[in-house]
Amino acid sequence: MIRIGLDIGGTGIQIGAVDQQNRIIAQDSIPTRTDLPFEQQVQLMTDCIYGLLDEKSNPELRMENVESIGAGIPGIADSDGVVIDCTNLGWKNVPLRKEFQKRINKPFYVDNDANVAALAESAAGKSAGTSSSVFITLGTGIGSGIIINGRVWKGFHGIGGELGHMILKLDGVRCSCGNRGCVETYTSATAIIRMAREAVADHPESLILSLAQGDPQRINAKLVFDAKKKGDPVAEEIFDRYISYLAQMIAGVVNFLDPEIVILGGGVSKAGDLLLDALRAEYPKYVLFNQLPLPRIEIAALGAEAGVIGAAMLS
Amino acid sequence: MIRIGLDIGGTGIQIGAVDQQNRIIAQDSIPTRTDLPFEQQVQLMTDCIYGLLDEKSNPELRMENVESIGAGIPGIADSDGVVIDCTNLGWKNVPLRKEFQKRINKPFYVDNDANVAALAESAAGKSAGTSSSVFITLGTGIGSGIIINGRVWKGFHGIGGELGHMILKLDGVRCSCGNRGCVETYTSATAIIRMAREAVADHPESLILSLAQGDPQRINAKLVFDAKKKGDPVAEEIFDRYISYLAQMIAGVVNFLDPEIVILGGGVSKAGDLLLDALRAEYPKYVLFNQLPLPRIEIAALGAEAGVIGAAMLS
Repeated sequence: MIRIGLDIGGTGIQIGAVDQQNRIIAQDSIPTRTDLPFEQQVQLMTDCIYGLLDEKSNPELRMENVESIGAGIPGIADSDGVVIDCTNLGWKNVPLRKEFQKRINKPFYVDNDANVAALAESAAGKSAGTSSSVFITLGTGIGSGIIINGRVWKGFHGIGGELGHMILKLDGVRCSCGNRGCVETYTSATAIIRMAREAVADHPESLILSLAQGDPQRINAKLVFDAKKKGDPVAEEIFDRYISYLAQMIAGVVNFLDPEIVILGGGVSKAGDLLLDALRAEYPKYVLFNQLPLPRIEIAALGAEAGVIGAAMLS
Repeated sequence: MIRIGLDIGGTGIQIGAVDQQNRIIAQDSIPTRTDLPFEQQVQLMTDCIYGLLDEKSNPELRMENVESIGAGIPGIADSDGVVIDCTNLGWKNVPLRKEFQKRINKPFYVDNDANVAALAESAAGKSAGTSSSVFITLGTGIGSGIIINGRVWKGFHGIGGELGHMILKLDGVRCSCGNRGCVETYTSATAIIRMAREAVADHPESLILSLAQGDPQRINAKLVFDAKKKGDPVAEEIFDRYISYLAQMIAGVVNFLDPEIVILGGGVSKAGDLLLDALRAEYPKYVLFNQLPLPRIEIAALGAEAGVIGAAMLS
């Protein structure tokens, strides 16, 4: 038996067939077409699935072997498979399950992409074998997925996992959600970029600005980390401040929920050991019972494929 | 069958026998004797349990009917029944289960008092019939107990539920734990008192100060609420600010964990509808998906007896 996973993003959709060992055995992708009506977008996805099922290349790849189809979205869905809100795709209250099942009559599941990534990591990644974990994506925004007792916990009303919009600084920086001081405004890649742009305004001599070819609009998180590695003092100050914020946020997750392991994904996590070593040293300072064993912090093991594998695991 | 529950506090210990309908059928209390060695403290507790078991008053009250003994402590214990840290009682790494079982050979359990109260409320209080809840005590400090899928979740390492020490304001007010801006420093009774003392220094005409007989040291949370009810503008400002902080903290719990219900206990919760009406109006502003059904917020139904009932329920 195989399962189909769709990783639906704002620019592209990854579609894969996954075997029972959670390995991708066939994969394809299509661009996200927000210019088309919702029904036609679903049609393109199901066309792609039919295209993937090529039993000549692999006898397993047949529709009758497909157990279920799952989709991860950068948004929120209810238990009836209705996408309540998915800003990047312009979806609001669209019946994704119903529309899929008109075309392929298989069990269909949809969940938030951070929950999906958390599930994939807990099956085939860094949290494999653990019963509780929190997966945090450090990207343009902050996403999170919670696993408790081996299952995704997305809340009683399905609105949990929005770690990015917990308040980390009362009356702090304005967030895209309209509130002030959300976790997202201090611990995302966007936060690093904001801090760097502010800093180079005062310190135009910083290596950050020359790496950005003199244009503050070209600054990104990787560039700040690169300048820090080369010893730029402005970049080092931003890095230390970012680590302090991130450590306080992660320590909050530990103080409140205390999972077995915390997994970091998303663009910022590509900084790898530079990020991990600093965080591991810093975060216990903010944990109340830090004399006891604490959750491990790790970088996600699965890369882009986590979205497809986790979506295929939905049930 | 009956179960024994002990609510061990910094000044007194409530001990009760609880029946299978979670009703207290016999109860007694003893003062907390931190002046005595740990073993003698346990001896006093077990003496009290023996005194409670009076089959002449109720034929159920016999040691052979006791199924288990549970204790709630203002601290942290491991799964072997060792109290790791319990500052108010001066206990650090004391083998509470072992010491109890030397005297009464029954299954013995110990857990944090907020977890215990959460358990009691979920069985016999406001969260009865729900499968997930977060119980928050608004007292001198902030405690919390998490129930997921009908069971207490105290974390993988047993250090969870410390909502009071999540960061709510980066670089904020210094907390007793040593860090800055903990939830506790903005949402506890202590926070209300601090804000009121600061305000009356600038506004000695405030009703708060006259209710405190001119002595800022006599200010407490109830007194601030009383002044607000009488229309004192300084008290109203403090109340609104406190509600805003508390709403942002509770919205954070909802954004991250989304339980079915949030229960408030502790001294501040005695303000009842005054607190509840303001919070219910304010907290959805800070929830990301606030167009969907949200967790109810309620004041705990069980009073002082929650500690004994919940402790007896430990297993």
